[in-house]
Amino acid sequence: MDVDAAVFDVFGTLTDWRSSVTEALSDVGGRAGLYADWPTVVDTWRRRYRPALKKVLGGELSWRPLDALHRLTLDEALAEHGLDDLGEAERDALVQAWHRLRPWPDAPPGLELLHRTSVVTATLSNGGVGLLARLTKQAGLRFDCLLSAELARSYKPDPRVYRMAADLLGVEPQRLLMVACHPDDLEAAAKAGLRTAYIPRPEWGPAAGRVDPPAVVDLVVDDVIDLAHALGAPGDTRP
Amino acid sequence: MDVDAAVFDVFGTLTDWRSSVTEALSDVGGRAGLYADWPTVVDTWRRRYRPALKKVLGGELSWRPLDALHRLTLDEALAEHGLDDLGEAERDALVQAWHRLRPWPDAPPGLELLHRTSVVTATLSNGGVGLLARLTKQAGLRFDCLLSAELARSYKPDPRVYRMAADLLGVEPQRLLMVACHPDDLEAAAKAGLRTAYIPRPEWGPAAGRVDPPAVVDLVVDDVIDLAHALGAPGDTRP
Repeated sequence: MDVDAAVFDVFGTLTDWRSSVTEALSDVGGRAGLYADWPTVVDTWRRRYRPALKKVLGGELSWRPLDALHRLTLDEALAEHGLDDLGEAERDALVQAWHRLRPWPDAPPGLELLHRTSVVTATLSNGGVGLLARLTKQAGLRFDCLLSAELARSYKPDPRVYRMAADLLGVEPQRLLMVACHPDDLEAAAKAGLRTAYIPRPEWGPAAGRVDPPAVVDLVVDDVIDLAHALGAPGDTRP
Repeated sequence: MDVDAAVFDVFGTLTDWRSSVTEALSDVGGRAGLYADWPTVVDTWRRRYRPALKKVLGGELSWRPLDALHRLTLDEALAEHGLDDLGEAERDALVQAWHRLRPWPDAPPGLELLHRTSVVTATLSNGGVGLLARLTKQAGLRFDCLLSAELARSYKPDPRVYRMAADLLGVEPQRLLMVACHPDDLEAAAKAGLRTAYIPRPEWGPAAGRVDPPAVVDLVVDDVIDLAHALGAPGDTRP
């Protein structure tokens, strides 16, 4: 595939948010003397994410940074699970847990391979610029550039976010590849004129069912290393 | 010095624009059958940069990407040197020369050292995001994040640009260090509440006089490796 740049979803596609945030929540909750089925609380928290985005994109909520949206949905999730006793400082700490997520094992070496090709790599995430800078640095995810929906004061899947990425990188949309594990992200990118690559990820845990790729997609790859090879990285470099 | 993030000027502070652009201009000009004192033409081009910025910041010119501003000042510089015969395609190619600048030798290893500290590093340049992505990738300048005045649709030394950097990185201005070889850049950063570090650079060529640091500056260092040590990188790592 011949493209000038590739932009990546981060939560789910490159990082295992579920195990990382579960660890933070069980730690913070445990120290507060609370007990719950923490993975389920995290799933509830994450499930409240897309409806919250929709409210922002629909104008029902004003735009705010992802951290503020995470705080709103955390409060809802804790209430739903009877965990109202968790304090303010603990809630703020949990929002910060999304700044320190574990990468899927193939993501760091795959991005290093891509960095050595001529393809410019960037994030294109609903996470803010500061979150992305800390997360990618700590997780060893090497990018040539960080782009966030924050720069358009919007959220994916708003088409303006994908067009902004092409504009800022100075590439034609049809020479820009969106990489994600979420069919709706890729469908919106394709509608904005981008090419698309799907990576399946067990983001909801090992027991959850496999997500099918979107009906129309330019490329399906196993992981980021596989993607790097498809975009021109030498083929004999899988660690 | 204890800071959370450091942002860097790029043209002059990290890259030797003068020799890089002179090489491109003598190449393009020579192939067009023209002869001139190319370093002097490049100096004229660069000298027309700050007045052009001032026109944008003063409202006399509407904001436009740096590439468009470079094209405007190139046309002026070529006319001044009687080089009107240079064609459109050649002029566009010369604007692109600013996307491929040679780094000062200490910049790549110094930024690698900084990457391994807890300090988040970013560009804060008047160059656009796409220019910065290509330039830093090709020059081996490793950053955790790329920030451009383009994201504020303005140019340094507009105070909004420095405040935007603190906002996007999510750090307090007094925990953010601006690194540059230009006193006016550092003075504007200090007025916006940032800390400042000065690196002297022979950006106008070996014959030009040394530029004095600004009257008020938090740190003066020899180069980026020296800066990395001042910000906590291990001391025995000069290559």
